[in-house]
Amino acid sequence: MNKNQISPLAPKNFPALPQIAGVLAATHSLGLYKSGRDDVLVVHFPNGAVVAGALTKSSTRSCDVNWCAEALKFGKAKALIVNAGNSNAFTGDAGIAKNEASVTKTRALTNCDAAEVFLSATGVIGVPLSTNIIADSLDEVWSRLAAPNFEQMARTISTTDTFFKGAGKSFELGDKTINIAGIAKGSGMIAPNMATMLVYIFTDAKISAVALQKMVSAHVETTFNAITVDSDTSTSDTLLVFATGEAGNSELGDDEVFSAALFDVMHDLALQVVRDGEGAQKLIKVHVCGAISAKSAKIIAMAIANSPLVKTAIAGADANWGRVAMAVGKSQEPINQAQMTIKFCGQMVAQFGGAISYDESQIDKKMQGDLIEIEVDVGVGTDSFTAWTCDLTHGYIDINADYRS
Amino acid sequence: MNKNQISPLAPKNFPALPQIAGVLAATHSLGLYKSGRDDVLVVHFPNGAVVAGALTKSSTRSCDVNWCAEALKFGKAKALIVNAGNSNAFTGDAGIAKNEASVTKTRALTNCDAAEVFLSATGVIGVPLSTNIIADSLDEVWSRLAAPNFEQMARTISTTDTFFKGAGKSFELGDKTINIAGIAKGSGMIAPNMATMLVYIFTDAKISAVALQKMVSAHVETTFNAITVDSDTSTSDTLLVFATGEAGNSELGDDEVFSAALFDVMHDLALQVVRDGEGAQKLIKVHVCGAISAKSAKIIAMAIANSPLVKTAIAGADANWGRVAMAVGKSQEPINQAQMTIKFCGQMVAQFGGAISYDESQIDKKMQGDLIEIEVDVGVGTDSFTAWTCDLTHGYIDINADYRS
Repeated sequence: MNKNQISPLAPKNFPALPQIAGVLAATHSLGLYKSGRDDVLVVHFPNGAVVAGALTKSSTRSCDVNWCAEALKFGKAKALIVNAGNSNAFTGDAGIAKNEASVTKTRALTNCDAAEVFLSATGVIGVPLSTNIIADSLDEVWSRLAAPNFEQMARTISTTDTFFKGAGKSFELGDKTINIAGIAKGSGMIAPNMATMLVYIFTDAKISAVALQKMVSAHVETTFNAITVDSDTSTSDTLLVFATGEAGNSELGDDEVFSAALFDVMHDLALQVVRDGEGAQKLIKVHVCGAISAKSAKIIAMAIANSPLVKTAIAGADANWGRVAMAVGKSQEPINQAQMTIKFCGQMVAQFGGAISYDESQIDKKMQGDLIEIEVDVGVGTDSFTAWTCDLTHGYIDINADYRS
Repeated sequence: MNKNQISPLAPKNFPALPQIAGVLAATHSLGLYKSGRDDVLVVHFPNGAVVAGALTKSSTRSCDVNWCAEALKFGKAKALIVNAGNSNAFTGDAGIAKNEASVTKTRALTNCDAAEVFLSATGVIGVPLSTNIIADSLDEVWSRLAAPNFEQMARTISTTDTFFKGAGKSFELGDKTINIAGIAKGSGMIAPNMATMLVYIFTDAKISAVALQKMVSAHVETTFNAITVDSDTSTSDTLLVFATGEAGNSELGDDEVFSAALFDVMHDLALQVVRDGEGAQKLIKVHVCGAISAKSAKIIAMAIANSPLVKTAIAGADANWGRVAMAVGKSQEPINQAQMTIKFCGQMVAQFGGAISYDESQIDKKMQGDLIEIEVDVGVGTDSFTAWTCDLTHGYIDINADYRS
């Protein structure tokens, strides 16, 4: 597979996204890519924003993730700076110094606290950048801040993505229109070194920081934490949601309509990341029900979604339920084998813990499609979870067994 | 990769193994393979044997594994029956009835308790065999029991193994010679359906069942539980060690010499399974030290050994330490990033949590070899663990994305 070949699961176009009042953005090239493509994104919230987020739990996370973890405690944002081409992971004191220089310069440009500046980086690891590389660029970038071009923003933060990821939504809340627009990058853990999933969502809703964080923390479990490409975890995964409050609505707390809309945008972006999974030819939905708890259902669903044998079987269009049963077993979660049922694409293939006869030609036809649904009832309870992944193909090996250079 | 192509990591020959007094064996074809190859192995211990073992922890394990779990509680064996070509997993009552018929017939042939008969099966799952298929064959097989031909035994229990696995050892204990001979099958989780790791070790040592079980339980952690091909877990993994006691030694308890010899045989067989990993071109040794506990070291080592990104990097002969750092992080075990060091093939590539400069040409040369050593010091303690795996190549995809024919 050619690295530059667009995933067959990609949406046709980058979507039309609503403008978000109170958000300005500009992109720039630091020269981290030979092509000279833009590699740094600056977002400014002139009137400030409320911010919530979710970060990788890796114990080797990058300087930037550590910075965001501290800043998120305050829940307020004035600026976001993201660079591609260098992850600033495993860069020690040099990485911290670079971040401090970037923050100091940003504070000089927009009067704010250090904790109102958010930083992300993705790309090669273990290679410190010069301390002022970003700081020195900010005067010029700042002079070009304008209404966001989300597609250009998504392009700037991309690494080996084969398409640029965006999702948005506008809806009425009372007599006000609320807009949400988000961008993401990520296609699994990516050559030439490590890459990551970065997600930035912007809304003009007015909402309390506490309520926003609560929604983000809940939805991340069933969106970005419910997807897997290869079971590996980045040192830089970052999701940040910024709310400028300029829609004119009265401040939202635990609002179901807004929460549902935010979920939709997060879910859409999460599935786009899976659709760009390295070498992916098929999107796989794994639904586990009948579990003793939602947590148990998730462990079982992720065991199936992360199984190389299940993922290669689907690459071969094979409804190989034995491998699904194996993956359920390896999770070591409570199940009742005698009550277990497995469906592929809606067709029952195993029931009461054993094979059943079914029309092979029907299922063979369904397995040729690019969305494969696996449903497993483990027969011990009423809880469920849905995970998403992609198949494991030669494309994955091609991309990841390449030399770094 | 051609399925019939022998792994490039295979030993040159099946080893010469010592004979084990008190062990008789014969093989036979039940016709489970189109080729008519032998697919059932019968082993008889005319004077009985002490037995110890380790079984898969999968919650969807096969009828045969469940049977062995019960029988192992008694620690005595008179017979072992293993078939390839059908795993008897997910076969419900039919699978249990078949096993009961096999045991009943065996008891008629050799006066023993039901718990002295051990059963294993490997191959396609979810397809019940006829109740008496094995029982009806036993009269004829029994008449041919003779001193073991270990290579023929290993061949009979194989499925998609590309070579047959054996290991053994003879040594003096006082004025007696003790012999150990073992066979194994397994090459990862294997197409066309599921396969497994089966290991049978025979010794003429006289040893107490309790002491033998203690040794097996300890050694399995650093041998068969320290290897991984693709992170998937079989429903049928079984290790059984039989001691006939015919060497004439006085009964062993916690004997270090015997224990070390048993370890060597187990370790040799475990590495042979990794060497036959599907698509494997390189053997990978992952040594983690400086951990807070042996358990923590093992979790980190297995996170590295199971990482598709680490395994594909090595397939590409790339000393990509960033992916190793990523895998350490995803384990979420305690580490000190500022003290972390990573070596590839003895060459330091990252120190104090960051990149160092080194002679790329030296390491590029070493990475071309077929044994790749990764050493990680996580800088928080003194405990260590060594795991073994193989690289992830196009061969794995070829083998596993095939249709079940």
